[in-house]
Amino acid sequence: MFTDEYYMKIALQQAKDAFKRDEVPVGAIIVSDNKILAKAYNLTELLVDVTAHAEMQAITAASNVLGAKYLTNCILYVTLEPCTMCAGALYWSQISRVVVGASDEKRGFQSKGLSLHPKTEYVSGILEDECALLLKNFFGSKR
Amino acid sequence: MFTDEYYMKIALQQAKDAFKRDEVPVGAIIVSDNKILAKAYNLTELLVDVTAHAEMQAITAASNVLGAKYLTNCILYVTLEPCTMCAGALYWSQISRVVVGASDEKRGFQSKGLSLHPKTEYVSGILEDECALLLKNFFGSKR
Repeated sequence: MFTDEYYMKIALQQAKDAFKRDEVPVGAIIVSDNKILAKAYNLTELLVDVTAHAEMQAITAASNVLGAKYLTNCILYVTLEPCTMCAGALYWSQISRVVVGASDEKRGFQSKGLSLHPKTEYVSGILEDECALLLKNFFGSKR
Repeated sequence: MFTDEYYMKIALQQAKDAFKRDEVPVGAIIVSDNKILAKAYNLTELLVDVTAHAEMQAITAASNVLGAKYLTNCILYVTLEPCTMCAGALYWSQISRVVVGASDEKRGFQSKGLSLHPKTEYVSGILEDECALLLKNFFGSKR
């Protein structure tokens, strides 16, 4: 039951909530031992803050729940490949696993030649089409 | 009077405040039209949050003061070269100028091959020795 697809669907629901609020639709959750510690979506417009990406909020919230700076027993599910900023934050967090929906060929950390922490396992392409379609629809509606 | 050294001294005072609180001593301020919009220092231990670097807090605070997501008429003074995460945040902010004290050869964004936004001017080495000495003393005290 607790598959990557299961958790990515929950992250995708966060992204859909972002869309409804006219935010770039990216959602993220952090899971530990099959418990969801944090749910977040991009809030850069509402918070008027370029740092308010879904991943950043999820990291802060999960640390808050755990009372721990390092997320060494946690998994991040995020609907879009993290940017440089978020990949940098994930590096510091030493998170054990990062699971991504859609790739971001232009802004994603991999296109910048960056790596996550050596302790971090990386998986991509989970519900990729659904995650990408939501973003495509969002940016299409802006033209 | 309002030289880079003048503002870096204020950022350095923030770093010294961090040191007193047993935080890695990095300080940052954001200035616009010679007004200081934000002062911050690293608070990763107190906030139990790897994202609480001085620069991240300063960006969020300056945007809050300005009511604007983009810091296109702002200068960041920071005592240590930004890491990947902070450089990524600075990229999104489109800040006009970044002034750095000490370089960070191991963790600095330049060692990762990253660049700031094309609109961002970059200056390094302002009060470099003082900024670096504070960090050296901090890590020396931990051994």
